[in-house]
Amino acid sequence: MELGENDIPETMRALVFNGSLQVEQEPVARPKSGEALVKVYKAGICNTDLEIIKGYVPGFNGILGHEFIGTVVDCDDPGMIGKRVTAEINCACGECDFCKKGLSRHCSHRTVMGIINRNGALAEYIVVPQTNIFVIPDNIPDSAAIFIEPLAAALEILDQVEIPDESEILILGDGKLGLLISFVMKLSGYSTTMVGKHREKLSIAKTLGVSIAPLEEFRKGVYDLVIEATGNGDALEMAIENTKPRGIVMLKSTYAGDISFNPSKVVVDEISIIGSRCGRFEAAINFLSNFTNQLPLSQLISKTFSLDQAIEAFGYAQNPGILKTIIDV
Amino acid sequence: MELGENDIPETMRALVFNGSLQVEQEPVARPKSGEALVKVYKAGICNTDLEIIKGYVPGFNGILGHEFIGTVVDCDDPGMIGKRVTAEINCACGECDFCKKGLSRHCSHRTVMGIINRNGALAEYIVVPQTNIFVIPDNIPDSAAIFIEPLAAALEILDQVEIPDESEILILGDGKLGLLISFVMKLSGYSTTMVGKHREKLSIAKTLGVSIAPLEEFRKGVYDLVIEATGNGDALEMAIENTKPRGIVMLKSTYAGDISFNPSKVVVDEISIIGSRCGRFEAAINFLSNFTNQLPLSQLISKTFSLDQAIEAFGYAQNPGILKTIIDV
Repeated sequence: MELGENDIPETMRALVFNGSLQVEQEPVARPKSGEALVKVYKAGICNTDLEIIKGYVPGFNGILGHEFIGTVVDCDDPGMIGKRVTAEINCACGECDFCKKGLSRHCSHRTVMGIINRNGALAEYIVVPQTNIFVIPDNIPDSAAIFIEPLAAALEILDQVEIPDESEILILGDGKLGLLISFVMKLSGYSTTMVGKHREKLSIAKTLGVSIAPLEEFRKGVYDLVIEATGNGDALEMAIENTKPRGIVMLKSTYAGDISFNPSKVVVDEISIIGSRCGRFEAAINFLSNFTNQLPLSQLISKTFSLDQAIEAFGYAQNPGILKTIIDV
Repeated sequence: MELGENDIPETMRALVFNGSLQVEQEPVARPKSGEALVKVYKAGICNTDLEIIKGYVPGFNGILGHEFIGTVVDCDDPGMIGKRVTAEINCACGECDFCKKGLSRHCSHRTVMGIINRNGALAEYIVVPQTNIFVIPDNIPDSAAIFIEPLAAALEILDQVEIPDESEILILGDGKLGLLISFVMKLSGYSTTMVGKHREKLSIAKTLGVSIAPLEEFRKGVYDLVIEATGNGDALEMAIENTKPRGIVMLKSTYAGDISFNPSKVVVDEISIIGSRCGRFEAAINFLSNFTNQLPLSQLISKTFSLDQAIEAFGYAQNPGILKTIIDV
């Protein structure tokens, strides 16, 4: 079932942001040496996409989307043709200090799929550097594989800080990232509590044994690690209040505008506030392979749309309480 | 030249804060078992003292002061009588989780000399737990020993974070804490830059080989570690701007009120903002022993007053541009 080069069309449908959103016919890019052309068949809508269309990421124009799975249809390595893959979204120079240290996600010359100077995955085809490609193991179904990118972001926390076994972890926010983080922490063996506004979302974490607390019932506690995943800057103060001396607050959300906090407790209790963004795809794929059967990922999918319905899908994804919105391309 | 118990007077002069500042006659406390009575002969005024008299530390009433040197005049161990000492300011329970982990400075039951529920050192005598006492080696002169407590706070940075050898360090603020931090970083072998408003203060750091930049001439750079020691919350944004991806901002100052920042760069660049307070006295004493001759500490002393002039000394210490104000008791 391979697509020959001759089967690749000249144009494709794509969701383009150009100040406004449109599904348009766009040329299908051809891979240069070292690149691969992937036929996308499933993509997710991320909060970052929603922020971009609100204008929070200045300067981006092009095809949106950075969470996807697809099939390689053209690349230097014939053994890759036909493989089910996804791809690391940060496309790095490979030569700067960060790249040499294995931190290519911080390459200062990077382009980022659907975010910075590079077309994204909400299209029939996408060109990506071959080094960014990850083959998805057969035991991971599509409905789980579509979470590789946000799951890598959740797992990034474990790469950034060493968390002793006996740590008590608090997650603020029951959105899709907060829920993925709760899965990661609980399945990594940590005592995990989650606070949020939505009982039905909290209950998804509860099935995994995460302690849940609706916001109005949450009593202040003292945690080793508090993960701020509400998307609301006001939650920083609550995160700091609930952190032990020498404890850590991880900031997983991006917000528009400034956030403020009272630095007294941060200085006196020597608290660390650590920003956290994308993570390693290897880690996410391993995690999915190990825990496919336990992870209630299908409960995180609120609705699936076709690419032709992409604008409607973006409208839907912006409603309060929606978890993952998927586009079948 | 030992003071016998009979030579200890019933009352002593002390600088008492009770909503306002007064030099008063106070009873000399007698040490219980496990405590020592120290005759103070030199004490420093810290910014925290100045904050307390402005009302920033709610609830403190009593004798001020936590930077001192003195002579043990009474304690269980006769071998300690007559020793020149200083003392760790945090007096801990010794039994809680933090104490057991060697983090007694974070003991939640702690009292803190001259700051939280315990009389301070701006007096002729002070009672301290014997476990808090540190004998000052003979090769450290009084004029250097008086900096043990703030130097421990500067060295705390090295205890909290691992700083690779090739790191570039930026210090914001040329006050006494900023200068001590610059000494620590430079003498620990790091490439260190300091930004401040006062050429004459910056020049003290320059004698040690610290790169200095008057604020108006500072060009933005990219540092592995930025230490915020200005005492002005507005500097946080400047600290973040000048930090590399995965770099660290240390907050060494305490401020009144909230501070704000734009979290985008913190999240995208995965920057850590870490509060930092008191440090280990052992580390400070070792550092002073090793570097006594290189450290330009005497240049940090702006003026010395007697205890009777303590109120005048506090007025003086609050003037802009003043470094360390010393009280000879």
